[in-house]
Amino acid sequence: MQNPTACLLVIGNEVLSGRTQDANINFLAKGLGAIGIPLREVRVIPDVAETIIATVNEIRARFDHVFTTGGIGPTHDDITSECVAMAFGVPWEPHPVAWARMEAHYAQTEQGVAAFNAARQRMATMPRGATLIDNAISIAPGFSIGNVHVMAGVPRIMQAMFATLAPTLAGGPPIVSRAVHSTGAAEGTIAEGLAAIQNRFEALDIGSYPYYRASGQGVAIVAKGNDAAQCEAAIAEVAELFRSLGAEVIDGEPGF
Amino acid sequence: MQNPTACLLVIGNEVLSGRTQDANINFLAKGLGAIGIPLREVRVIPDVAETIIATVNEIRARFDHVFTTGGIGPTHDDITSECVAMAFGVPWEPHPVAWARMEAHYAQTEQGVAAFNAARQRMATMPRGATLIDNAISIAPGFSIGNVHVMAGVPRIMQAMFATLAPTLAGGPPIVSRAVHSTGAAEGTIAEGLAAIQNRFEALDIGSYPYYRASGQGVAIVAKGNDAAQCEAAIAEVAELFRSLGAEVIDGEPGF
Repeated sequence: MQNPTACLLVIGNEVLSGRTQDANINFLAKGLGAIGIPLREVRVIPDVAETIIATVNEIRARFDHVFTTGGIGPTHDDITSECVAMAFGVPWEPHPVAWARMEAHYAQTEQGVAAFNAARQRMATMPRGATLIDNAISIAPGFSIGNVHVMAGVPRIMQAMFATLAPTLAGGPPIVSRAVHSTGAAEGTIAEGLAAIQNRFEALDIGSYPYYRASGQGVAIVAKGNDAAQCEAAIAEVAELFRSLGAEVIDGEPGF
Repeated sequence: MQNPTACLLVIGNEVLSGRTQDANINFLAKGLGAIGIPLREVRVIPDVAETIIATVNEIRARFDHVFTTGGIGPTHDDITSECVAMAFGVPWEPHPVAWARMEAHYAQTEQGVAAFNAARQRMATMPRGATLIDNAISIAPGFSIGNVHVMAGVPRIMQAMFATLAPTLAGGPPIVSRAVHSTGAAEGTIAEGLAAIQNRFEALDIGSYPYYRASGQGVAIVAKGNDAAQCEAAIAEVAELFRSLGAEVIDGEPGF
């Protein structure tokens, strides 16, 4: 079975300006691999309507799933939701369930301090046909429309949304990996033997990653794919390659 | 004066699989802002030749500068350099300066353990017309061709390459920013007033960022642009907006 593919769209000037260190790419890369919808591309784009609309339309045609993070709050720079409506060519209108829920929520708070005002009403306004993505942390939901899943940018809210969303997606077999590393080997020395191993295990993705840690430097080799036994067999050959060069062999990835 | 624009291309399966938490986006976002070549888009793509070639050609036409990280080591999954040659339609051939330097370097090491073998020779092979990007850490250089700057993926090597490269690039005025935050304000309450401030300062990019820290939660507002005085004036208005709502006002960004 072929794995469905995913593209992540990180929307926000704050990542591009360096104000914010993105944490969502790594979380979703792992989470999507675990449900068998591997992440194949990421784009980080600014809060610019034409860019968001054009990018959403390009990537939703090219990937099985598109996940977006950021730009669904109440302020002027939060324009993801209306841009997704424009990309799909559907009206951007109050979502009855989200609206009723947020209206009831803010009615319980002190009026004026946290009223269900025009800014907050925008968070209950969505492309027609959107399905809500609830989350356990904030009252405002994300949503899915077609193969596009729109989530918050704040990591803990995004993670809570992904926890709701993930079980609803039909993934392929999970991506698994095995690793081995050695402080006694250099990439340039093992490269030829490693390429031969990659050629013998065509279904796997074998990566070579030099590391520089306080505990020492060396090379880590990671084999990834759908078949754990194949990954183990490939990594066993890598271990043998390390040994043949007189280098030590350490199971798994290096610590930090 | 208009600022030249930058796009960053992060090349590597390890970021997409979640094996590696990218650190280069944030470093380059800050570094490029400081030299007035703001980062406008980032793409993370796998080590797949067709994807690298097509992406390089698309983005080098759309942005003033393209920076790539990753895929210039000696192993089979390091294919950035030959793909950039293919994107430019030029031969991929030994770079005489890089070749001589690496040959001399490896001649000094114990042969067999660190020979200038075929794998390492690939690191001295570049698109015809490439200009070297030296670095103080590793013997293997990056390179520029046209408006594409090819750097290592290992953060400390990439950073050393950027230190060499940055002074050679003609940037625009640096991007500066001013910030203010408040634990007493909610995004949904300040949104309307904040939008009005953004409208009065059209040349600035004003962002609103909720935060959730051990020390408390609130909202940070950041104004960015080329004119520090304008940023200060806008942030003074935001402070006044906070005060008008009875919220405290704290200079700068929240601590962690």
